[in-house]
Amino acid sequence: MAGNSIGELFRLTTFGESHGPAIGGILDGCPPGLVLDLAAIQHDLDRRKPGSSRFTTARREDDVVKILSGVFEGVTTGTSIGLLIENTDQRSQDYSAIKDVFRPGHADYTYWHKYGIRDYRGGGRSSARETAVRVAAGAIAKQYLQQRFGVQIRACLTQLGPIQAAELDSRAFDWGFVEQNDFFCPDPAAAAQMDAFMRDLKKAGDSVGARIYIEATAVPVGWGEPVFDRLDADIAHAMMSINAVKAVEIGDGFAVVSQQGSTHRDALTPDGFTANHAGGILGGISSGQTIRVSIALKPTSSITIAGASINTAGESVQMLTKGRHDPCVGIRAVPIAEAMLAMVLMDHAMRHQAQNGHVSVQTPDIAARARALGHAE
Amino acid sequence: MAGNSIGELFRLTTFGESHGPAIGGILDGCPPGLVLDLAAIQHDLDRRKPGSSRFTTARREDDVVKILSGVFEGVTTGTSIGLLIENTDQRSQDYSAIKDVFRPGHADYTYWHKYGIRDYRGGGRSSARETAVRVAAGAIAKQYLQQRFGVQIRACLTQLGPIQAAELDSRAFDWGFVEQNDFFCPDPAAAAQMDAFMRDLKKAGDSVGARIYIEATAVPVGWGEPVFDRLDADIAHAMMSINAVKAVEIGDGFAVVSQQGSTHRDALTPDGFTANHAGGILGGISSGQTIRVSIALKPTSSITIAGASINTAGESVQMLTKGRHDPCVGIRAVPIAEAMLAMVLMDHAMRHQAQNGHVSVQTPDIAARARALGHAE
Amino acid sequence: MAGNSIGELFRLTTFGESHGPAIGGILDGCPPGLVLDLAAIQHDLDRRKPGSSRFTTARREDDVVKILSGVFEGVTTGTSIGLLIENTDQRSQDYSAIKDVFRPGHADYTYWHKYGIRDYRGGGRSSARETAVRVAAGAIAKQYLQQRFGVQIRACLTQLGPIQAAELDSRAFDWGFVEQNDFFCPDPAAAAQMDAFMRDLKKAGDSVGARIYIEATAVPVGWGEPVFDRLDADIAHAMMSINAVKAVEIGDGFAVVSQQGSTHRDALTPDGFTANHAGGILGGISSGQTIRVSIALKPTSSITIAGASINTAGESVQMLTKGRHDPCVGIRAVPIAEAMLAMVLMDHAMRHQAQNGHVSVQTPDIAARARALGHAE
Amino acid sequence: MAGNSIGELFRLTTFGESHGPAIGGILDGCPPGLVLDLAAIQHDLDRRKPGSSRFTTARREDDVVKILSGVFEGVTTGTSIGLLIENTDQRSQDYSAIKDVFRPGHADYTYWHKYGIRDYRGGGRSSARETAVRVAAGAIAKQYLQQRFGVQIRACLTQLGPIQAAELDSRAFDWGFVEQNDFFCPDPAAAAQMDAFMRDLKKAGDSVGARIYIEATAVPVGWGEPVFDRLDADIAHAMMSINAVKAVEIGDGFAVVSQQGSTHRDALTPDGFTANHAGGILGGISSGQTIRVSIALKPTSSITIAGASINTAGESVQMLTKGRHDPCVGIRAVPIAEAMLAMVLMDHAMRHQAQNGHVSVQTPDIAARARALGHAE
Repeated sequence: MAGNSIGELFRLTTFGESHGPAIGGILDGCPPGLVLDLAAIQHDLDRRKPGSSRFTTARREDDVVKILSGVFEGVTTGTSIGLLIENTDQRSQDYSAIKDVFRPGHADYTYWHKYGIRDYRGGGRSSARETAVRVAAGAIAKQYLQQRFGVQIRACLTQLGPIQAAELDSRAFDWGFVEQNDFFCPDPAAAAQMDAFMRDLKKAGDSVGARIYIEATAVPVGWGEPVFDRLDADIAHAMMSINAVKAVEIGDGFAVVSQQGSTHRDALTPDGFTANHAGGILGGISSGQTIRVSIALKPTSSITIAGASINTAGESVQMLTKGRHDPCVGIRAVPIAEAMLAMVLMDHAMRHQAQNGHVSVQTPDIAARARALGHAE
Repeated sequence: MAGNSIGELFRLTTFGESHGPAIGGILDGCPPGLVLDLAAIQHDLDRRKPGSSRFTTARREDDVVKILSGVFEGVTTGTSIGLLIENTDQRSQDYSAIKDVFRPGHADYTYWHKYGIRDYRGGGRSSARETAVRVAAGAIAKQYLQQRFGVQIRACLTQLGPIQAAELDSRAFDWGFVEQNDFFCPDPAAAAQMDAFMRDLKKAGDSVGARIYIEATAVPVGWGEPVFDRLDADIAHAMMSINAVKAVEIGDGFAVVSQQGSTHRDALTPDGFTANHAGGILGGISSGQTIRVSIALKPTSSITIAGASINTAGESVQMLTKGRHDPCVGIRAVPIAEAMLAMVLMDHAMRHQAQNGHVSVQTPDIAARARALGHAE
Repeated sequence: MAGNSIGELFRLTTFGESHGPAIGGILDGCPPGLVLDLAAIQHDLDRRKPGSSRFTTARREDDVVKILSGVFEGVTTGTSIGLLIENTDQRSQDYSAIKDVFRPGHADYTYWHKYGIRDYRGGGRSSARETAVRVAAGAIAKQYLQQRFGVQIRACLTQLGPIQAAELDSRAFDWGFVEQNDFFCPDPAAAAQMDAFMRDLKKAGDSVGARIYIEATAVPVGWGEPVFDRLDADIAHAMMSINAVKAVEIGDGFAVVSQQGSTHRDALTPDGFTANHAGGILGGISSGQTIRVSIALKPTSSITIAGASINTAGESVQMLTKGRHDPCVGIRAVPIAEAMLAMVLMDHAMRHQAQNGHVSVQTPDIAARARALGHAE
Repeated sequence: MAGNSIGELFRLTTFGESHGPAIGGILDGCPPGLVLDLAAIQHDLDRRKPGSSRFTTARREDDVVKILSGVFEGVTTGTSIGLLIENTDQRSQDYSAIKDVFRPGHADYTYWHKYGIRDYRGGGRSSARETAVRVAAGAIAKQYLQQRFGVQIRACLTQLGPIQAAELDSRAFDWGFVEQNDFFCPDPAAAAQMDAFMRDLKKAGDSVGARIYIEATAVPVGWGEPVFDRLDADIAHAMMSINAVKAVEIGDGFAVVSQQGSTHRDALTPDGFTANHAGGILGGISSGQTIRVSIALKPTSSITIAGASINTAGESVQMLTKGRHDPCVGIRAVPIAEAMLAMVLMDHAMRHQAQNGHVSVQTPDIAARARALGHAE
C-alpha cells in the first residue's frame, strides 16, 4: 500500500537505500515444494550487477543474496521468504557535495518535497540499487513458471540511442549472442556499433537511452484479471515501476495507431493464430501466444556534464555529478525487466488458480497446438 | 483483487455486462464534504456516449447515472457511493450468431478458456460498455481535484490512423475546438482530414487505431509512492486497463531512447524547470510540472469484413461481425482516459496525505512559481 | 481499503444507507460455473428480515435481491456480481427529530466527528440495514462451499439476556427447532422463557443482548494464512464487523484462561481428534474439525426509555428513540453471522487454492476419518 | 495477501522461522520526520523476551533489532523500514525427535497438511518467536501515536489460570507495579498467588492460560472505517493473530449479553460520557473514550506431560515435548498485545487522515473535555 510492495498473491516487499547497510525484501506467497536453484538466482543477480559489462558503472557490488527464511533443506515451505543483500561498497563520501542540492533529472527534488527529508547519500531509496532485490525475487518466479508451466522469459536490448538491432521476429534472434555481449543485444552488427558509440559517449561524459524487448513463451491461456487488473495493465505497471522507464508497449504497441482492424486482428485457425499483433493478450487475458513487451529507458541524468539546478534554499547552482554511474542504465534493465515480467506472470498464475483452478475447458488450446507445429506466435 | 477494482484509497469497483439489465459501481473512499456537480458528471458521460459523434457506434445508450448512496443533500458523506446505469438499448438478438464462435481479435477466446463459460451476448464483461462507470467515477475525482488543488485534467486525440494533429506544446492546442469536433482533435486541419478518412473507412467496413494525449496541470509536487506504486506506474496500469489500449508513454516516452542525458534532464532554476521531458514525474513522484501521457488504441476487431476464426469445437469458420460498432474506439477513449488519470491522481493525493499530511517543506515549489510566471511546463 | 470491502479473493463491497433508494453490493471473485439457487439466497434474506419474528422490528422490508451481472443463464460466469436491494419502506419522516441530536449508544456522534456530515435519516450507513447485502453474498458462498467441499454452516442463539439454552455439544442441538422458533434457539424450554422475557421487555421499552453460536462442519484441513491472516483472525474480524458485536470466541474462548495445557490440547489418534477445545483451528489453519465460534451482541440503544445526550451544539438534551426497532438485534444476527463465516471460509478456500492447489499430502486427513466414524468433532 | 502482512497504510510484513538464521520485517508507510527512540524499542523487546521473567521460557534470545533502512540520522524518512533480529540461540538439535510427529495442540499437523512440507525444527514459522518483530514495529507506532496525538497504550495480565486480579477501573490499577512483577499483574496480592501457582505448575510440567487487558487512552474521536474495517473489527483481527489467542472482547465484551439497553448505552453529557460500556468505540469508530480490550490466551501445548498423537504415517504415538517452553505464554503476550493495538491505531490514524484530514468539526470533543475534568472514561 505504501508503495514498496508489488503483486497480490505472489508479493514482493522491499527495503533499502543505496548507502545503507543492506537492501532486501520479503517474498510472500511463494508456493511450497519448489526446489530452488540458488545458482540460477545468483546468475541473474550477476547479469544485473554493475561492472559486469564495461559500459555499466564501475561500482563493484557483490550482490550476494542470503535467503533467511521460507526455504528448508533447499525447498520452499510456503512461508515468507526473507532476502538480504549487503551493501559492501558504499563510498558515501562521494556524495557529500550534493547534500543541499537537487540534481537535475533526479528524484532529489521530489523526495525532498514529498517527505520533507532526504537520504542525500546517493540516490537513497530512489537508486537503481533496489532493483537487485527484484531480480532475486524474479529469479524465483522464473523457476516456478518454468518448472510448472514451461514458461520461458527472456529479454534483450533492441535499441541504444540511435542504433537499432535488426528488426526480426524474436524467434530469429540469436539468443545465445544476447548473453555474450556487453549490451544484451541480439544483433552482432548492431552490438559492434553500440560499442563504438558508447566509447565516444563515455568520453563526452554523457548518457543515452535504450529500448528493451521482453517476451514470455508458453504462457497458458487464461491469465489476467479484467477489467482493471488485466495482464497487460499489470505488466505496464510493473515495467513502469523500474527506474528510468518512460514507455511500455504490448504487442505492436504504438504501431496500432495507424493499423486497420482487418490487419491488426489475429486470425484464429484450428492450427493456431496466424499472427501476433496483440502480443499474446486479448481482453486483458493471455491467449497462449508469446507475450511481447517493449519498454523505453531514459538516459540517466547522472553525467559529468554540468547542469543548471537549485539548492534547498531555492538558489541557482551548477551541478556536476561525480561518483560512478552507468552511461546507459538501460543495459542493466534487461534482467530487471525479465524479473518484473516473471513476477507479474507468477502472480496471475496464482490469481487464476485461486478462482478457476477447477475449470476444465474442452476446447483445444490452439496456441499450444501452434507451438507444436512451429506456427506463428 | 479479483480484478474489478482500481485504486487503493479512492477505489472504484465495477460490475455489469453489455447486455445485462444494468452496469454500475461502488466508489469507496471519497472524502466527505464535496458538493457534487451532477451536471458535470453527466456531461462527461455524454462525451463518452456512443452516438455523440457521427463516427462512433449508432447504438443509443442514455447513460444516465443514478447515485444510490454516499451523497446526502448534494454533498458526499464519506460513505461508499453506489452508481447505477441502466442498459436501455440492448438488442441481444443481434448476437445469437456468435454464440459458439470466437470473434478474431476479441476476448471471446480468452474468456472462454479462463472461465469455461461466456456471456455470448455481445462483449459481456469485456465490452467497452463498462467504461461508462469509470467516466462517472472519474468525473467525481475531477471535481475534487479541481476544487481542492486546482488540478485540471484534459485530453485530445492527436492521431487517427495515418493522420496526425500538428505537433505543438499542449498549451498551444485549441482546447475549445477539441470539444467542438467529432474527433476531440485539437487541430482543425487534421480534423477535416479525419472526417474524410473515416467516411471512406466506414464504407470499407474497416476500423482504425488512434493516439490520445492526456494531461493534468497544477498537480502538487509529491504525489506517487515509490518504489512500485510510482505515479507513472499507476498511470500506466490505469491507462492499459482501458479496452484496446496497447501502449503508454509518460513525457517524451519512446523518444527518450535516442536522447542523451544532457538533453533529457530538465534543468531546475529558481523560476521553474526549463523543460518537461520527464512529463511531470521524477523518481515516480509528481514534480509539480504538467503530467503528460500518451496512449495508443488498437483498431476494433468488430468490422464487417469477414475474417478467419474457429468455433468452440475448434473448427474453422468465417466470421463477420454484425451489430453496431465504432470504426474508431479511440475517439470515445478521450473522456475515459481523462477519468482514469483523474482517479489515479485522486488516489495518490489521498495516499500522500495519509503519510505526509503533516509534512511542511520550506523550499519554494518552483513549479507553482513557474506556472505563475508562464514558464515551461 | 476505505472500509466497505471484505475478503481478498472472494470480496464483497457494499453501499447504501437505511433511508436511501437502495442498498447493494458487488461480489468479486466468485468462481465460475456455480449453478445458483436463488431461492436459497432469498430464504436467508427472509431469515434476516425484520418482521420475520414477532420480536424483531415491525418495519417491513421486502428485501428482494436483484442480481444485475455475473450470472448468465443461472450460472456464475466469474465476473463481478452486482447485487441490488431496494429500500421500499423508508418512512424517513420518523427521524426528523434526531437531526441535530446524538442518540446515546449510537454511531451518530462518531460519524459526525469523523466525516463532519451525517445522514440523519435513521442510522444511515451505520444502520443494520446494510447487513442484508452481506446475507445475500454469504448465501452464495454457502452454496459454493456446500457443493464443492460439503461444508455446512449453521448458527443459533444460545443466550438472550439472562436466559441460556442448555449447554450441549452442538451435534445434540435440535437444529430443526432452531428454524422453527422466533429466537433461532436450539432449546425449546429456553425458547419459551425467552418468549415471556421479551414480552415484558417490550412493555418496558427496553432491549437486551444475545449470544450466538456459529459452526462450520466438514471444512478441509489447511485453510488460513498465518501469521496475520489466520483463519481465526479473519473470522474475528468478520464477526466484529457486524453491528453490535462486542466479543468473539473461537473454540473454548475465554474458558481457556483457566484451563491447563494437559486438558486443553486436543489429542490426535489415528481415528481423529479426541476433543475440540481448539474450535477447529490450530496455528491459524483449519484442522478439519468443526469450526466453532461464539459472539456477543449488545442490546440496541434504540429504546423508548429516555436517555441523556447532547446535540451538535454540545448542549444537554433528553433523547427518546421513536421509530421501529428491534428489542434484541442479536436474534437477526443469526443468519448474518452465518454469512460472515461463509464469506471468510470461501475467501480462504480460494487463498489456499491459489498457493497450494497443487499440494498433495499423503497423510490421512484424520478429521475426515473421524467424521466418518462419528467421533468427536 | 499471503498472510504475512498486517495493516493497510502502516503495514508490517514479517519473515522468519524460530530456528533459521534470523527473523525480521519491513514496516512500510511510516510517516517521515519521526525521531526514533531506539532505547524504547529495545525496552519493549526486552519486556517480551523469554527469560525476562522466571516463568517464561529459559531460552535466551538477545532480541537486538537492527534497523537497516528508512531511518536517516535518527529520523524516519518515509521509506520502508527494514528490521532484522538474528537468532542467536537456536539449539535445533532439541527438535530432531519431533520430525515425523505432530505435537498435539500445535500447528504441526495443519502446516503439514496445508503446505505438504514443514520446518520441523521447533515451531518454524508458527513459533511465537516471530512476535518479536511485531513488538519492534509496534514500538515505532507507539512513539508516533504518543508524540503526535498523546495516545498512551498499556496492558496487563488480569487473570492467570484461576487467579484473578482485583476487578477495578483500569485508572485505579497500579501501573507502576505492572512493570515490576514477573506477571505484568496490576494487583500485588494476585501476583503473589500467581507466583505460588506457577511454581506448582512448573513442577507438574503443565501450562496454563491467561487473560490480558489492553487499553489506549486519548485516542481522538473518528478513527475506524465502517462497515467492515471498523476499529473494533481490526483490533479483533490483530489480537486474534497473536499465537494462542482464542477470544477478544471490546468494552464490556460478553457481559453485554445479559445487559439491557438502558444500562449499556453510555449517556452523553456536555462534560463527557458518563460511562464506557462500549469500550471507546461506537459504530466501529473511536469515540474519544479509552479503548478497552481483553483477550484470552490458551495454555501452551508444549508441556512435559506425555500426550497422545500420531505421526506423518498416521500411526499412534506418545508425545512428550522437550526443549524450553513457557508454562504461560500469556505473560509474554502483554507487550505483544500492546504492539498489535498500536499498529492498528496507527494504521487507522493514517486511513482517517487520508480521507478526512481536511475535515473540521465545530462540535466540542466531549471526551477530551471529560479527560480534562477527570470524568468517566
